[in-house]
Amino acid sequence: MGNSALKHSLKKLRDEKPLVHNITNYVVMNFTANTLLAMGASPVMAHAIEEVEEMVALSRSLVINIGTLSRYWVDAMLAAGKKANELGIPIVLDPVGSGATSLRTKTFRTLADSLKLSIVRGNASEILSLLSKGITTKGVDSVHAVDQALADAMDLAKSIGTVVAVTGPIDLITDGRKVIRCHNGHPMLASVTGTGCAATASIAAFAGIIPNALEAAAAGLAFFGLAGELAAKKSQSPGSFMIALIDSLYEITPEQFEAGARLTTDPS
Amino acid sequence: MGNSALKHSLKKLRDEKPLVHNITNYVVMNFTANTLLAMGASPVMAHAIEEVEEMVALSRSLVINIGTLSRYWVDAMLAAGKKANELGIPIVLDPVGSGATSLRTKTFRTLADSLKLSIVRGNASEILSLLSKGITTKGVDSVHAVDQALADAMDLAKSIGTVVAVTGPIDLITDGRKVIRCHNGHPMLASVTGTGCAATASIAAFAGIIPNALEAAAAGLAFFGLAGELAAKKSQSPGSFMIALIDSLYEITPEQFEAGARLTTDPS
Amino acid sequence: MGNSALKHSLKKLRDEKPLVHNITNYVVMNFTANTLLAMGASPVMAHAIEEVEEMVALSRSLVINIGTLSRYWVDAMLAAGKKANELGIPIVLDPVGSGATSLRTKTFRTLADSLKLSIVRGNASEILSLLSKGITTKGVDSVHAVDQALADAMDLAKSIGTVVAVTGPIDLITDGRKVIRCHNGHPMLASVTGTGCAATASIAAFAGIIPNALEAAAAGLAFFGLAGELAAKKSQSPGSFMIALIDSLYEITPEQFEAGARLTTDPS
Repeated sequence: MGNSALKHSLKKLRDEKPLVHNITNYVVMNFTANTLLAMGASPVMAHAIEEVEEMVALSRSLVINIGTLSRYWVDAMLAAGKKANELGIPIVLDPVGSGATSLRTKTFRTLADSLKLSIVRGNASEILSLLSKGITTKGVDSVHAVDQALADAMDLAKSIGTVVAVTGPIDLITDGRKVIRCHNGHPMLASVTGTGCAATASIAAFAGIIPNALEAAAAGLAFFGLAGELAAKKSQSPGSFMIALIDSLYEITPEQFEAGARLTTDPS
Repeated sequence: MGNSALKHSLKKLRDEKPLVHNITNYVVMNFTANTLLAMGASPVMAHAIEEVEEMVALSRSLVINIGTLSRYWVDAMLAAGKKANELGIPIVLDPVGSGATSLRTKTFRTLADSLKLSIVRGNASEILSLLSKGITTKGVDSVHAVDQALADAMDLAKSIGTVVAVTGPIDLITDGRKVIRCHNGHPMLASVTGTGCAATASIAAFAGIIPNALEAAAAGLAFFGLAGELAAKKSQSPGSFMIALIDSLYEITPEQFEAGARLTTDPS
Repeated sequence: MGNSALKHSLKKLRDEKPLVHNITNYVVMNFTANTLLAMGASPVMAHAIEEVEEMVALSRSLVINIGTLSRYWVDAMLAAGKKANELGIPIVLDPVGSGATSLRTKTFRTLADSLKLSIVRGNASEILSLLSKGITTKGVDSVHAVDQALADAMDLAKSIGTVVAVTGPIDLITDGRKVIRCHNGHPMLASVTGTGCAATASIAAFAGIIPNALEAAAAGLAFFGLAGELAAKKSQSPGSFMIALIDSLYEITPEQFEAGARLTTDPS
């Protein structure tokens, strides 16, 4: 996927405003909705088991995010996910805090076993938690470097047939064979809560536009990372950076996206 | 209601700081609370069935908002609403996403049937969903123009004895006989999540001050729309617009409100 | 605790980035997480009874905040709190809205009776609600002056063996014998929702660094209040003040904290 294809996908996103259904955590709901709106998508948040199947059926992609998890929500995630699978709607999973508690790690496992996931996006510790025994993390922050996770990410991608995106200073995106690296981003992103979850939502917005999951994940991360770079030019303090980030998601033109995306493919 | 009465009602709001009890959705809780605080009201959020009756009894108005709905919350909405009715405390209902799923549409119906609502505020699709068969919407965004909803809004107002406010480029406010149009507002408001819900909260703040529900709804929408206009003069990107909006809600003086409110009444 | 000790504790906080486990209310989750991240701590939010014990075991302090309470959450608060007590992890309680409803007042009582709390932080009405009969408050805002609460705060501190912090124009911090007054802060803090809860989180961050609870509470309030003062120099409107507040929490250097903290100890 060249940068000119990225330009066209952003144009399409802004034209079609795909509805993205989010079952996500309380901390980031508002920020995620504003991220999606600013970039040009149409967010909806709904988690009740009575309505998630109807809501996902109206949507172009589904985000499942396991932060601030409770058991009741897992049932709704499974119901929404099964309906999404039935209808061919891509699911993007964010295993927030997997590895920190057994509820989160087990839920990641249950979702991966029960659903056909298009894309899983996490930090290195979260991704490692699914395959590796004895991984422990510090809350929701990664204690592992991205490259430590590459082999496991490729294994995970192959074993469950999904695209895996491991985010960090340089993001890795793999379907188990190809590896794309995304060089967009900025360290200030780590100083605002929910930017990982927002990156997942950005991926989901592009997954509503780009059928190939590897390309959608790369596009979503490049776009979000580029917005982070532009925001960091306006502010290096987290409050005003967060606001500049939302502004940048809205302001980036398809041409700027084409010029600014920095994706490389590993030689295979 | 002339603009001079609006000036006085804003003065009264700032003096009396009416407590507004919100049973609202997770996405907008923080933004709604900041909206109410900034304009001069006193927000409280409480949803547990064990406490909503006590909380609403301390309040000057009650917001019921059905976004991110689940069944457990509906019981609390009904309990709070019945207590509010008993005490003569006005209820302002925001039927977020009604029409998108049957849970939401049915809940709108249940609330309208079980409670005496002072004001219902929604977009055209949400308002149409209660009366019209076969309405479907795209998530929580309207797919219908405001004027498509006028006749239905008047019918709805008459049939359930409430004031109906249909928001869009020009807002319609009707009690089933009179129709007021609010010309305040700005397209940037649609780029920030929860501005519809915040407009509902603004109405509820004025409903704690102005006994006439038609006038309270018009005042709340004019005030919120004016804040949007002033914010758009400061920023045309959604992150900084959102911040400027909160600032404007706080900065508008009673005199500016008098000068800036643009309400017209349809010839009857 | 002199101001030079405050400088060192802030340095330590930034170096060690203590994980703070929050069981807190929906309204402030995002703002609290951003407060903690900005000041240099590492926030995690988790409330499910299935995981709170594991999560708190990874943490350096625990915040329990009873805003937007429901019964299910109380069980998780107790489970997390008992594990924290077992492991010697300090608990900081924020009894939001205690006195407004019997659910909140009873829950404050239950938590105080069942757990060894390190620090309780509330406004005067909330603190008074535990000991005094017939106290009623207006929603979540105080209707009592701070000094009205001093004797009760000292009684409360002695009777349940905790540090009590009563915040207002001047904050009182007492362990039942010593009384520290914090003169930092700014009236604009009252115009943003969740600043009381964020002050509690600031205390919890310092409680992860400073073993003495009285000193940790004083440090947390002085730091947060100082950030409010610096933010008020940038903006006197609540939206941009809120953003400037987050920026200030990040920007304050240990040297600025040393120079700006204004704590006094009452003669005993």
